[in-house]
Amino acid sequence: MSTKSTSSDKNKAILLVCDGLGDRPSIDGKTPLQAAFTPNLDGLSVSGINGLMDVIAPGIVPGSDTAHMSLFGYDPYKYYPGRGVFEALGADMELHKGDVAFRANFSTVDETMRVIDRRAGRKGSKELAEVLNGLEIDGVKILLKNTTQHRCAVVMEGEQFSRYVSDVDTHEAGDFVQECKPLQDDEAARKTAAIVNKFVKKSYELLNEHPVNAERREKGELPANIILLRGAGSYEGVPTIKERFGFTAACVAGASLYKGVAKYTGMKILPVAGATGKGDTNLRNKAEAALHALTEHDLVFVHVKDTDNHGHDGDFEAKKAIIERVDEELVARLKDADAYIAVTGDHSTPVTLKRHCSDPVPLVIKGDGVRTDGVKNFDEIAVASGGLNRIRGVDLMPILADYMGYYIMYGT
Amino acid sequence: MSTKSTSSDKNKAILLVCDGLGDRPSIDGKTPLQAAFTPNLDGLSVSGINGLMDVIAPGIVPGSDTAHMSLFGYDPYKYYPGRGVFEALGADMELHKGDVAFRANFSTVDETMRVIDRRAGRKGSKELAEVLNGLEIDGVKILLKNTTQHRCAVVMEGEQFSRYVSDVDTHEAGDFVQECKPLQDDEAARKTAAIVNKFVKKSYELLNEHPVNAERREKGELPANIILLRGAGSYEGVPTIKERFGFTAACVAGASLYKGVAKYTGMKILPVAGATGKGDTNLRNKAEAALHALTEHDLVFVHVKDTDNHGHDGDFEAKKAIIERVDEELVARLKDADAYIAVTGDHSTPVTLKRHCSDPVPLVIKGDGVRTDGVKNFDEIAVASGGLNRIRGVDLMPILADYMGYYIMYGT
Repeated sequence: MSTKSTSSDKNKAILLVCDGLGDRPSIDGKTPLQAAFTPNLDGLSVSGINGLMDVIAPGIVPGSDTAHMSLFGYDPYKYYPGRGVFEALGADMELHKGDVAFRANFSTVDETMRVIDRRAGRKGSKELAEVLNGLEIDGVKILLKNTTQHRCAVVMEGEQFSRYVSDVDTHEAGDFVQECKPLQDDEAARKTAAIVNKFVKKSYELLNEHPVNAERREKGELPANIILLRGAGSYEGVPTIKERFGFTAACVAGASLYKGVAKYTGMKILPVAGATGKGDTNLRNKAEAALHALTEHDLVFVHVKDTDNHGHDGDFEAKKAIIERVDEELVARLKDADAYIAVTGDHSTPVTLKRHCSDPVPLVIKGDGVRTDGVKNFDEIAVASGGLNRIRGVDLMPILADYMGYYIMYGT
Repeated sequence: MSTKSTSSDKNKAILLVCDGLGDRPSIDGKTPLQAAFTPNLDGLSVSGINGLMDVIAPGIVPGSDTAHMSLFGYDPYKYYPGRGVFEALGADMELHKGDVAFRANFSTVDETMRVIDRRAGRKGSKELAEVLNGLEIDGVKILLKNTTQHRCAVVMEGEQFSRYVSDVDTHEAGDFVQECKPLQDDEAARKTAAIVNKFVKKSYELLNEHPVNAERREKGELPANIILLRGAGSYEGVPTIKERFGFTAACVAGASLYKGVAKYTGMKILPVAGATGKGDTNLRNKAEAALHALTEHDLVFVHVKDTDNHGHDGDFEAKKAIIERVDEELVARLKDADAYIAVTGDHSTPVTLKRHCSDPVPLVIKGDGVRTDGVKNFDEIAVASGGLNRIRGVDLMPILADYMGYYIMYGT
């Protein structure tokens, strides 16, 4: 029998996730985290408990979406609904049980349906989005929202659909638009694929000659003349963090994917001025937002995207620089909050690989009563000898919950 | 394919479990285990292999019952029968497949069924127990045994019952006696609950005016005028340790719960003079009993309860003191036995929390051929850098079995 705590001795916590934080030794045999000047992060390690974390499992390369599900305590092998769901939620669209959602791009195709630019010159259009939003295909209502630049989220409303359909997006310019195909042999997948194909065709018919695109062509810009869908997800819903652990949670993030995962698990999404999920993101505002959120919520998740971007770019110095900014502008402010603080990554994105990899991420937890372990530096190598040893991402939230006093007991 | 060893090179082993041993740094930044003078335990660490152990899983707070199932190699999520079964077995009652068993207290209620004292002045009565033992309710025979003080075990004999019923015990004085309710919508649970409610009512009718209670009232003592049940368990039986690992096992423990879990897994329960499961327990007798048991059994489980009691009391000095007694009176005697010796806890009970928590417990294993790892002290911090790293409780018995030569091989 499993019981939850009823004690009134509750604590708050901050979970700071630097996307793609983990790295490998390269310049001077150091990782960016080792090379960076990070007195505040190192201070957390000195007074905290440290270790390595396989966010999904050893040797498994996490996606950002599955990684965050793990970090929030949801085994992605059990709970992952498919990427599109998070994109739609992150775009603040309403989803209902059974709805199928997609990531989508405004793209540019020629008249043979060959893709000229998957991102239509990285430019979207609210006006073109309005042309497509609310279309009915075979009696099914399709909702579309233009989020940032060329990016969109698409939702197919209803209960008879399947996420098991292939992408229309070619993933490479020069290829022809793909036909959406059912990936399971059932009516739901066949029906979903058929509607997707009609919607894509319809998007070209409605967009190609639209005045907005005529204007773009006149200016020498690429027309946004088709919508290409990918990453189908099916909204099923999960028990919220509050239901599972007993505490409330809030999200301070710029990029919509992370807001989407947070929303899926029942976190409150907080607006933060200047949090862009990019290099110009205002980390000081994030720190203040997080501290303010702690007054109303038990756990605050803070996400920094740019560490990952520089990993993908293979830019050691830029990754080192953003880590130093995180240390100075974010950690320095958060470290003395009256709360547990955990700092980690969602996966490694080594600058030498320019992609996610399965190397475990460093983790430090500081707060009342943690078993301080003698680790002096917060980096991938030093934390390996810490008191947490090597845990899995899905274990982090139960561990934090116990520190916070919202423990789950099994047995008596 | 899984095969068992047939080698004749077998070794013996001692598994010493100090209940609630794990703790957190508090006085002078040390845990009680760090603060205690423990030359014998430290000696085991120096010549042994060390590590941390999540007795159930990271972040999951173990109960004592589920924890010991794990330590004996039985995944509690698969095998846990409910607490009452262990109480009844620990009280030396016979159980048969399907029987439902409960923990129970002699309690004191007023005429409105409000609980005055859940523990009836911490005093039971063999004579009152005899009044209730063997009662038939709706043709079902109820067995009751008074174990220590106010504590009882109750068994409902038969095969048509369910452990999925709620507690009658209020868990707090001042509340009214609870009605037992079925927790599953089936006939077995409904029938079990109905019989429990009739039994509780009957216990009040038979006990309230009993001469023993008249005498207690005259002396100004609280009457033991009702039996309150909790922790229903259903006896299903499991393959024994001998059947699963190939070796025999014996139990040296004072407190009945641990004897119950040991018996459930097929261990021989050894009587030990002066082993009380409390502060006055005779550890030297336990050491002698364990050494003697090694002549007839392959593995001897030795349990010390008092470490946990002082954690629950929040008494750092008392926890430190009992650890020093364990070191001097028990470990000093056991450490040179011709056997592997493993020392650990079943969970952490930090004096700062006064409850079980999920922090992993320290573990050391000493014996022929273990990979000595340079750890110098047996404590929660030092062992983290040991050669065992961080394992799970359910893995301990297979690891010991292999050291002992009773290995389970998978594949060829």
